[in-house]
Amino acid sequence: MTTSSTSTTKKYGSLIGVSLGPGDPDLITRAAWSQLKRTNTTWAYPIRSNKTNSYALDIAQRAGLTIPAKHQPLLFPMTSNSDKLARSWNQAATTLLPILHSGQDVLFLVQGDASTYSTFGHLARTLNEMDDNIKIQTIAGVNSFSAACTKANIALAEQDDTIAVIPAAYGVATIDKLLQDFDTLVLMKIKPLLDELLDWLQQRNLLAHASFIERVGATNELVLQGTNILQLYGTKVNYLSLLIIKNPNRIRGKRIKGCLKKSSLNEHS
Amino acid sequence: MTTSSTSTTKKYGSLIGVSLGPGDPDLITRAAWSQLKRTNTTWAYPIRSNKTNSYALDIAQRAGLTIPAKHQPLLFPMTSNSDKLARSWNQAATTLLPILHSGQDVLFLVQGDASTYSTFGHLARTLNEMDDNIKIQTIAGVNSFSAACTKANIALAEQDDTIAVIPAAYGVATIDKLLQDFDTLVLMKIKPLLDELLDWLQQRNLLAHASFIERVGATNELVLQGTNILQLYGTKVNYLSLLIIKNPNRIRGKRIKGCLKKSSLNEHS
Repeated sequence: MTTSSTSTTKKYGSLIGVSLGPGDPDLITRAAWSQLKRTNTTWAYPIRSNKTNSYALDIAQRAGLTIPAKHQPLLFPMTSNSDKLARSWNQAATTLLPILHSGQDVLFLVQGDASTYSTFGHLARTLNEMDDNIKIQTIAGVNSFSAACTKANIALAEQDDTIAVIPAAYGVATIDKLLQDFDTLVLMKIKPLLDELLDWLQQRNLLAHASFIERVGATNELVLQGTNILQLYGTKVNYLSLLIIKNPNRIRGKRIKGCLKKSSLNEHS
Repeated sequence: MTTSSTSTTKKYGSLIGVSLGPGDPDLITRAAWSQLKRTNTTWAYPIRSNKTNSYALDIAQRAGLTIPAKHQPLLFPMTSNSDKLARSWNQAATTLLPILHSGQDVLFLVQGDASTYSTFGHLARTLNEMDDNIKIQTIAGVNSFSAACTKANIALAEQDDTIAVIPAAYGVATIDKLLQDFDTLVLMKIKPLLDELLDWLQQRNLLAHASFIERVGATNELVLQGTNILQLYGTKVNYLSLLIIKNPNRIRGKRIKGCLKKSSLNEHS
């Protein structure tokens, strides 16, 4: 942003991505909380269809916050069709632009963390394509996989552990290949592949090292570990479900530490 | 825990892993804040040597919190020597056990998230090996890489992105291999390998897609992107530094979505 634009942007509101954490209202950060307590802002929040509630808005409500008079649901359908997605970002940005131009800040409520599998980045980019004077601010939040680890009583990573976070949609063969290089696998969006993943966990003897967490921090949270996970066979889980697998069989390569000399580095590579 | 042990454990304090987020006191969660505002708890916090301050304690102090009368630094030297590490966990647990036995809760202050590369898990395990009646509670926090993304104005992951988080100590060859499968690489603990990583970023034409973030959220935070990162050649960076690389060249495999039938799944694998 150039200095000359300061006077122009002064009157515009900012779009603020407010991460609420994955579900437990107590995992809202102080920065997010301050924003949510402000008066004279508009809240915007994603909905998947006109029939469903907003998960993000639900977190704010369970935190005891009052929805402000000015609030705006934004429709982001669950689709991988890029045209449909672009249309929904465009529609959302078109809805918010007059509010921002009027000088009011818009808080976009995000479940989890705004940088992690959130639609916030798309929305912000689309808005800045329409008007690059709109300032964007993002408040980081707790990731679902971090909260899930506390519920499953496991570490996401210790010391030299490697972590892969991948949408399960890539399929079991792709996931299986990662066992070679990763100590922790976090599989997101497991819903469509659940039975195949359960087969794979059994084949690889990984069931004892796996944790299934559904809607972490919500009132109907479900945590299953070990053979208990098998009760999910043939069931339909929520789209907010993930699997965390600790890999007991990984053979680690040498690691290069601070005190080694150049010669050892060369040996290694 | 069996029901018969309830009366025994009643008088013991709990060990609570209180994640403070990576550095900005505003990223402390409400759950952590409530704990930190309690009276009659002991704060424990890690120090790397008897000469250095605790980074976690510094976050709490910058948040305006008062260190309670009872507070306990715990020495966790920066070493990969497993004997030395085990000794430090043992020493720390031995220090905390009488406090917990006296009925007082101990808040172990953790920078970042207690499940992600934290010593908290080791400490908790060691304590429970000494006395499995001690209850452990963990409060999740914001990860450094999530906060770093907001500062670098990038997404950690969008839609079907895959994320690898790995300690840079595995070396450039290992990191390079991950480009095939990952849209985002988060390289932790880059300090000892910095120059090699800068060479690699240039060789792979990844400099334009890289962000370096040091001490995210602290008063002396540093964010460098693109060619500006090259000014780090030959310098010594803080151990709390990371590189986030967005991979523009990744070719994604087919993804399996909710609506596909079994036959398509089989085709894919």
